Amino acid sequence: MAITLKEVAERAGVSRSAVSRSFTEGASVSARTRAKVEKAARELGYSPNALASSLTTGRTKLIGLVSNNFHNPIFLEIFDLFTRGLQDRGLRPLLVNLSEETEPEHSVRMLRQYSVDGVVVASSTLPPSFAIAFRDAGVPVVNSFGRYSSDPKVHAVGIDNVECGRMAARTLMARGYRRISFMGGPESATSTQDRFKGFAAELAGRDGIETSHSFAEAYTFDAGRREMLRLLEAPPAEAYFCGDDVLSIGALSALRDRGLTVPGDVGLLGLNDMEMARWENIDLTTIHQPIRQIVTSSIELMASLLDAPDRYPEARIFPCRVVERGTLKAPPDPG
Amino acid sequence: MAITLKEVAERAGVSRSAVSRSFTEGASVSARTRAKVEKAARELGYSPNALASSLTTGRTKLIGLVSNNFHNPIFLEIFDLFTRGLQDRGLRPLLVNLSEETEPEHSVRMLRQYSVDGVVVASSTLPPSFAIAFRDAGVPVVNSFGRYSSDPKVHAVGIDNVECGRMAARTLMARGYRRISFMGGPESATSTQDRFKGFAAELAGRDGIETSHSFAEAYTFDAGRREMLRLLEAPPAEAYFCGDDVLSIGALSALRDRGLTVPGDVGLLGLNDMEMARWENIDLTTIHQPIRQIVTSSIELMASLLDAPDRYPEARIFPCRVVERGTLKAPPDPG
Repeated sequence: MAITLKEVAERAGVSRSAVSRSFTEGASVSARTRAKVEKAARELGYSPNALASSLTTGRTKLIGLVSNNFHNPIFLEIFDLFTRGLQDRGLRPLLVNLSEETEPEHSVRMLRQYSVDGVVVASSTLPPSFAIAFRDAGVPVVNSFGRYSSDPKVHAVGIDNVECGRMAARTLMARGYRRISFMGGPESATSTQDRFKGFAAELAGRDGIETSHSFAEAYTFDAGRREMLRLLEAPPAEAYFCGDDVLSIGALSALRDRGLTVPGDVGLLGLNDMEMARWENIDLTTIHQPIRQIVTSSIELMASLLDAPDRYPEARIFPCRVVERGTLKAPPDPG
Repeated sequence: MAITLKEVAERAGVSRSAVSRSFTEGASVSARTRAKVEKAARELGYSPNALASSLTTGRTKLIGLVSNNFHNPIFLEIFDLFTRGLQDRGLRPLLVNLSEETEPEHSVRMLRQYSVDGVVVASSTLPPSFAIAFRDAGVPVVNSFGRYSSDPKVHAVGIDNVECGRMAARTLMARGYRRISFMGGPESATSTQDRFKGFAAELAGRDGIETSHSFAEAYTFDAGRREMLRLLEAPPAEAYFCGDDVLSIGALSALRDRGLTVPGDVGLLGLNDMEMARWENIDLTTIHQPIRQIVTSSIELMASLLDAPDRYPEARIFPCRVVERGTLKAPPDPG
């Protein structure tokens, strides 16, 4: 950690102030001086200190990456995409784990201490009060995988979960299922509420369709398995739309343990299309959520907010689609 | 982000310097003044800026958390434990994704820019040159899940992978398997090399034991599946020690696809005991690596290095044990 600005100045044969200006965006320095400084810096292996320079630029290039579910494998994919995408733009993710946090205040204080330039809340289960608390603290916020709203309080990038619920209901009806159930994530999560809302609305008043619903305690394998075991104390529905993929995999495990075949006895439909859904020993029919596009768009939005923090809040919504695999029966033969 | 030191000083009725000293560890300030300052700070919601204060203390409390495999679900557990453990100590993880990085230089430069107080390299596959490059840059380094050595170059916390390989070989022999194979992770990873070394040493020269080995391209489901499909072009071994759990699950999927039952036709033994290994539809017999203890010890070691960076490098090794589940046949009846 030894190379100093002074050494670079000496090697380049310029003043220390010239070195400092060479590394400050928009500062006045001749192209010739800048070239000399950059050459010297390269030769010495000097890199300007981002934190020290933040005191002049007001920018730390740190982005708080806030999440709360480290037991859902989809988040490993999400962290992978976020960290690489942020790094590619010279931004750095400060990972914040709110698994056991119920009050936004503490996390706001924590991120203020680090003068993060912005916060990405990557969660569909943290109450909206978290994202709003960051916004109120004056930090640009993007809520990825949060609730779609026609009057968004913070920037949101994700899917229309109500429409996804409708899509799930239509998919199950099209396969000829008649006793159809929703086995959602935690009832407190906006994603669960919205998926259920669309699902129920689409099925309401349909002739010959019987519906039911229940909620797992969390978006985890264990919660999905537990909830399905509980449901199996009574005769099961013909098919379940599960809150997400990891819940579906938990449900799948419970069904097989009780000697039921999927899709022979019971159909399952997930949501997310995480890497594991296509593992051949899981092979889950699911609704694809375009994770990669959501993360890319979230990062682009965050980058633009760094330049224009007062930008009017927008909601960026991406379409979903059904991915055909092995846990739903085929549609009835039209012939 | 509005509350300033000046406002706290005014509310507390003390000088700005007194506020600053109240928030600096070890600085001289009376208990009475400190109490007044803390009360005013609490009332105003002021928290000292960790980065600005780092210029006086020389500490940023940022810890680089460096990894390179975001396709192995074990890392979600590892990130969960690291972020919570670091947060509990007032330290903050700067997540660094080296998935596509082959040269240590770039990542060293990146972490230097942020003046991290220390670096945890959480990987068993990054070449040792990465951890050594951080050390050479003057940053305290802990290599978690790295190679055990009697002459460690950097602090290492993990398991003795050679001994784990021996344990795997003994376990498979004790079940009566005679044609035994090692299906490892990437051959370049020290963890793979060491597990294979112990495995081969334990089996060498044993009467009636036939051994073979091969390597998957990465510690991922896809690589494990691909490698097992390739192996199944010839008659399979009776049992495989797979490089880790995610490889085992890939292998399991390939075996079932080819109509082979586990453990009826082929036995599988994993390593890690990740959350998913106990999922009832996977139910993998595996060698438990004490992830939680390794992470806790890594964080404790890092915290002590922050106070004594020149501490002599040590290796902290934790014992492993076999976890009995459903992918190996029972030991032969001794009667």
